[in-house]
Parts: sequence; C-alpha cells; structure tokens
Amino acid sequence: MIGEIIAIGDELTSGRILNTNSRFAAGQLFAAGHEIIAMATISDIRAEIGAAIKKAIKRSDFVIVTGGLGATSDDLTNEAVASALHRPATLHPEILARIREQLPDSPVKVNATLEKLAWLPAGAEVLKPEARMAGHLIIHDDTPVFFLPGVPHEMRELLTERVIPRLARWKAGATRHVLQKVYKIFGLAEIEINNMLSHLEKSDPDLRIGYYPVFPEVHLSLTIIGTEKSRSEKLFISMDQEIQAIMGDNLLGFDDDTLESVVGSLLKGKAKTLAVAESCSGGLIAHKITTVPGSSAYFTGGVVAYSNDLKTGLLGVDPAIIDKSGAVSGETARAMALGICRRTGADIGVAVTGIAGPDGGTAEKPVGTVYFGLAGENKVIDLCRHFKGDRWKIQEITAQTALNLVRLLLLDKQLPSH
Amino acid sequence: MIGEIIAIGDELTSGRILNTNSRFAAGQLFAAGHEIIAMATISDIRAEIGAAIKKAIKRSDFVIVTGGLGATSDDLTNEAVASALHRPATLHPEILARIREQLPDSPVKVNATLEKLAWLPAGAEVLKPEARMAGHLIIHDDTPVFFLPGVPHEMRELLTERVIPRLARWKAGATRHVLQKVYKIFGLAEIEINNMLSHLEKSDPDLRIGYYPVFPEVHLSLTIIGTEKSRSEKLFISMDQEIQAIMGDNLLGFDDDTLESVVGSLLKGKAKTLAVAESCSGGLIAHKITTVPGSSAYFTGGVVAYSNDLKTGLLGVDPAIIDKSGAVSGETARAMALGICRRTGADIGVAVTGIAGPDGGTAEKPVGTVYFGLAGENKVIDLCRHFKGDRWKIQEITAQTALNLVRLLLLDKQLPSH
Repeated sequence: MIGEIIAIGDELTSGRILNTNSRFAAGQLFAAGHEIIAMATISDIRAEIGAAIKKAIKRSDFVIVTGGLGATSDDLTNEAVASALHRPATLHPEILARIREQLPDSPVKVNATLEKLAWLPAGAEVLKPEARMAGHLIIHDDTPVFFLPGVPHEMRELLTERVIPRLARWKAGATRHVLQKVYKIFGLAEIEINNMLSHLEKSDPDLRIGYYPVFPEVHLSLTIIGTEKSRSEKLFISMDQEIQAIMGDNLLGFDDDTLESVVGSLLKGKAKTLAVAESCSGGLIAHKITTVPGSSAYFTGGVVAYSNDLKTGLLGVDPAIIDKSGAVSGETARAMALGICRRTGADIGVAVTGIAGPDGGTAEKPVGTVYFGLAGENKVIDLCRHFKGDRWKIQEITAQTALNLVRLLLLDKQLPSH
Repeated sequence: MIGEIIAIGDELTSGRILNTNSRFAAGQLFAAGHEIIAMATISDIRAEIGAAIKKAIKRSDFVIVTGGLGATSDDLTNEAVASALHRPATLHPEILARIREQLPDSPVKVNATLEKLAWLPAGAEVLKPEARMAGHLIIHDDTPVFFLPGVPHEMRELLTERVIPRLARWKAGATRHVLQKVYKIFGLAEIEINNMLSHLEKSDPDLRIGYYPVFPEVHLSLTIIGTEKSRSEKLFISMDQEIQAIMGDNLLGFDDDTLESVVGSLLKGKAKTLAVAESCSGGLIAHKITTVPGSSAYFTGGVVAYSNDLKTGLLGVDPAIIDKSGAVSGETARAMALGICRRTGADIGVAVTGIAGPDGGTAEKPVGTVYFGLAGENKVIDLCRHFKGDRWKIQEITAQTALNLVRLLLLDKQLPSH
C-alpha cells in the first residue's frame, strides 16, 4: 500500500529534536511491503495540521500521524482533526475512568487538563485500550489514519504491535513483497558504479537500484517490490549474484557491515592479530578498529608517530632509512609496519605516513601524498596514493585504504601495486 | 520569513537514512530568525517532487530543497523542477568546463553522465561557483528556492555560507538585525542549562535561546532579532556576558570552536606539547587532536595500548603497578600519563584506561568505568568516572573528558577530584 507519514511538533520544525520517529516508521513500513511516498513535518499550527492530514487522505492508501496527542496546550492534533474532518470531539468514558483511577489525588486543575485525553474525534478507535498510552485509528473515506504518540518508545510499540498487523490485514491481495539488500562499495566512484549497473536498472519493472555516496564509500541498494513472492525471490537472487560479480573486490560488505567490522571478522576467523602505526591519519585507523565491540581480541594496539623521533624511538625505524628516503616514503612506511609488528607481537602490521594538509606539502610530495606499508602473511609491501580534498577527507580515505589493504591481504586477494 | 524544507530521496522515505539535513537546516534557519512551518520528505518520483516544490512556493516566503542534484539516474530534482516550473534545462558552460577539466582522462561514457551536472533549470544561479559542488538558487514567483546537495557537509557549507546570508538580505529581513552566538557546553545536561538560563529567556521579546544536545556537548544559541541596531547590540553584549558568567568553566568555546581546537590554541599559546596514552578510547583522543590543521606543532604522538604488554613495553608502566592495582586503575592511569611523557618528550601527557563495553565489565568495575591520568605543569593526578551508554557513547565522552582535563590544566583551573 502507498502511505504517508506526518510528524507534528514545533520541536521538530525548529530543529531542536531530530525526527527519528518518521525514519523508524518508514523503515518498518517499507520492510512490511509498503511504499512511503512522502513524509511531512508540521509545526503546531491547527490549520496546517488539518490541511496536511486531509491532503494525505486524498492521495494515499493509509496515513500515519505522530505527535500532538498529549494534554498540554501545544498538543493540537485531535482538535485539528475534529475540525478538518468534521468529527466533533467525543468522550471516551473508559479513558476518563482510567485517568481518574490513575490520579485519584491530583489537584482538580491537573485532572481537568488530563481529561482532555479522553476526548477524541468522532469515530476514533483506541489502538491499545489496555495500555496507558494515547494512540487511535480513524477510518476516513475508506483510508485508515493512525494517530500515534510522539514519545518514541510508545510510537514504536504501537506501530509494530498494532499498525503493521492491521495494515497487513487491510484488503487482502494488495500485499506486495519487498526484498532489499545494501552493498558497501569502496574504490569506485558513484558514477562508475552507475555505469557498470545501468543495464540492470531497466531490466525489470519490479527492480530499483539506489546509489548513496557515504564518503569514502558508495552504498548501493537493491530493492525488489513485486506482487508474486516466488518471482520476486528469484529476481532478487539473480540480481544479487550479478551485482556481487560486477562489484568484485570493490564490494566490502552488506547492510550493517562496516569495513572495520569486516576486517575484524576476518581477523577473528583466521585467529590473527593486527597493529597499526599511523602518522598522517593521526589515530583514526586505531579508532575505527576499536569502535567494533570485541576488537580487543584481535587488535594489539597502535602508535601515532607524528615526529621522526617517535618513528625511530617507539617503532624502531632505522634513522638511516628516514635520512635516505624521508619520513614520507615507501621505505619508511614498510619499516613502520615491520616495527609495529615487532613492538606489539602482532601478526599483521599496517602503517601510513603522509601529508594530510593543509600545510606541509612540497612540490615533490604535495598535500594528499600518502605512503602505506603492510607487513604480514609473509609479505611486506608499500604503496603510494595521491588523495584530494581537505584534511578530513584525506584522513578518512587514508584510514579506509589502510584497512582495505588488510582486508585484501586476509582474503588472499591481489594487493594493489604502486 | 516563513520557510519550508523539502528533502528528496528514496533512502529517506524507506527509512534507510536518518534525515539529519532537514534538522540541521531547521535549527540554523530558526536561529537566524526564520520560521519553518513544514518539512517534507519526498521519494524519488518526479511528479511528487515537482508538486511539492510548487506547493511550497505558493505558501512560503522561501524554500530549501536538499538532495537529488547528482549525476546518477535516481537524481531527479532538476528534471522535476524543469517540468513543474516550466524552466527547461539550460547548459552552464562554466560547470561543463570544470567537469571536463577535472576528468580529462575519463571514459567518454563517464563524462557523458557527469555532463548532466552542467544542465540546470532555466534561471538557476549557482550558489558557490568557485567550489566543486552542486547547489543553486531559482527565484520563482518572487520566492527564493535554494537547491542544495544531499551530502551533509556540502549542504551545511552552502546553507551557512550562502543561504542564510542571502535570506538575511532578502526584503523584510533587511530591516531586521540578527545577532547570534553559539556556546559549546560540556558537563551540564540540557535541562540543567535550561533551568540556569530560564530567567533570561523571557527577559526580552527580541531574544531567543535555543538548546541543542550534540553528545557529549550541549550547544546553546543566543539570537537577538531586533529592528534597532544599537538596542540589539547592547542587549547582545549584556546577554553574552550573563551567559558566559553562568556557564563558567563548563563553557568550552564559541561558534566553530571545538574542544580539540580550543586545546590546540591553548597549547600553541603556551608553547607546550601534548601526548596521549589510550586504552579504552582506542585512538579517538589522538584522532580528535589531529583533525585540527597544524596539530603536528604541539602533538608529539600517542600510543594505543590495549594489552598489558603494551602498557609495560611501549609506555614503560611498572608491571608491579598493574599487578597490584589492575590495568583499569588510577595508579595505572597515572603511570601511563607519566610514561607517554617520558617516551615522547611531551610537556603534558593524558592517559585513559577503562572498560568501553559491551563486554569486559565486572561487578567491581562495570562497563563505563574509566580512569584518567594527567601529568604536566608540575602536577600528576588521576580521576575515575562512571559513564553510561553504548560503546560509542562511552568512547566519545571518555575522549571529551580527557581533552577537557588538558584544557582545565592549561587554563590553570581547579582540576576535578575523584
């Protein structure tokens, strides 16, 4: 079914609160086979709320409204609906009784305010009468409109327990099967991936491919929305295989995978340990590795060696190498990778030395020049890359490139050469 | 002015990506004195995009559209606008030249796809022609419609550098004087700050105070929007002084300051150097320090020592200390701070050792227990904190607390005790 989500509240339109409700609802509804064509956020203005709901009813199969159901003066959803849909406020005695029972000793003023909660637009059906929670359904012009509280955990509970099952039973036969997979790609630009897959894009009307750059990766989504389950599954499997084959070594992982979680799983699977020696990435590689829970099992540690003294002192790089080739060189990167293995006892060592900018570049070695060293699995290699962008971008892509070298080494893939 | 924000993309309406762009824009526009009455999120459907933009132009003073400006086949914003507003695609030769110049050796197919970026709806004015970034303005029916990229850092850059100044000069906006300052607070909860400043909030109708939790900080915005310049300036100065006095040592900095940039400036000002020894923060402190351009002038380096072997081997912590007090202890934290100073020759050393979770906690030292060690300026202290939250939150607040200790030391402030 085609749906719309409307979130209500000044706290959203003033940017004070991030709207996680609409995102949660969209994700759940999408996974349940629905298509959300629009999400709206409306400030606490009665006429705007009413107009948005009326318009959504006209063009959608169902509507989800969150927020504005409370008892304070800025909670206007019910009043807006009563007026816009000509459904006068109607007392729900069971809600009133519950309020009075829960607050027998409250001051009269508090009770009077809270009793507002017992008045709902005519025709409203309370979604979870047994719970102390706002939330109701109005079926208007044959369109179900679900009103959910703005409190995230209440909204989530009602959405998964009441809304999604109710929609699944709504007009049998209309259900569609949605299959989705996200691919994390590194080493190809969005536009290159688009070109490599463009022949698939138009191969089937049930298929959608999306491209989302999340620097330094590109995320690719494959979505199949069909009416016939077995057909959708067959299409999904064949497309998935095609995409994996085309992306090859550039495919880092799927869905919730990150490069650092993939590298972590590979290290655990092979019972190997890793250590890092960083110059221009300044600790970012170690930081990424250690965001993964349980990384202490395979990450022995790292050194951030900005100065030459630390490269020789902490990492044991021969000063003659730095004198001869320079601190930013392939020779130094190799020596750093070997040094961190020796100092930490790790099986694999990865090292970077380069110029993240904005200062420190020379004509010979401009900002963005980064040397990588990798030692382990009986190999020692070095590699030079020239990156573009600001300091943040250079540091990010440096860390990503270093971790990707470790991934390729562990997968026994061909390592990139100079 | 009254505005509307429209975000475009299937990645949003399918719930795969959280819409942080609209929230950022709403917060910035609100702080600049505008009112956002609605925020819409539209999936990649041409007709829906066009209809939403047309409707927004009709009822708002300005419109912000984010996303769908790229070169891939699911980027439809410009086509939708061309069709809905009857503004045929028009070639911008300067963009074309830039694309060709940047990719002289790309395959013809790639260039042909990228050249889509040079075609904008008739009447479009490129917002930042000197940058390699999409983003343009169309003034339609006297209403400015800003089209910004969906990539968050580009969107933010254009919004703050181009959109907000442009709106400030727009008609009615020209007669109002907007003064704004953002305060970065650490160590107080949003609700505490709210209570400390609530007496100021209603002290003048021209004044607005906004609260935005940006974990682990809270950002506070002071905005004065007045018609009389001298009055506004006087009010701004007095409010600024009051806020600074009330926030005291919890105030880290202003506007674009970050804790790491403030610490960097203090180190440069005092000509001191810093080194870090990290366990549970896993490189995050070093990473934060080295995001600041020029940090190599005062940051000597760091060690990420996950294992006890590295704490003794690389940092020279006496094994007897670890045996007696444990790796996660105040004694070990002090020894690590002293050790990193000795090994790197830095003037100041800061160290952390703790349990970031989700595993590794004990009854005595649960997940979130972190010990800090600080050595320098003739002082050696240690400190224990118990943080709550997931691994990410514990690592972030650990890094923030460590850097804040360095800030307080350099400012010669009272250091927190156990």
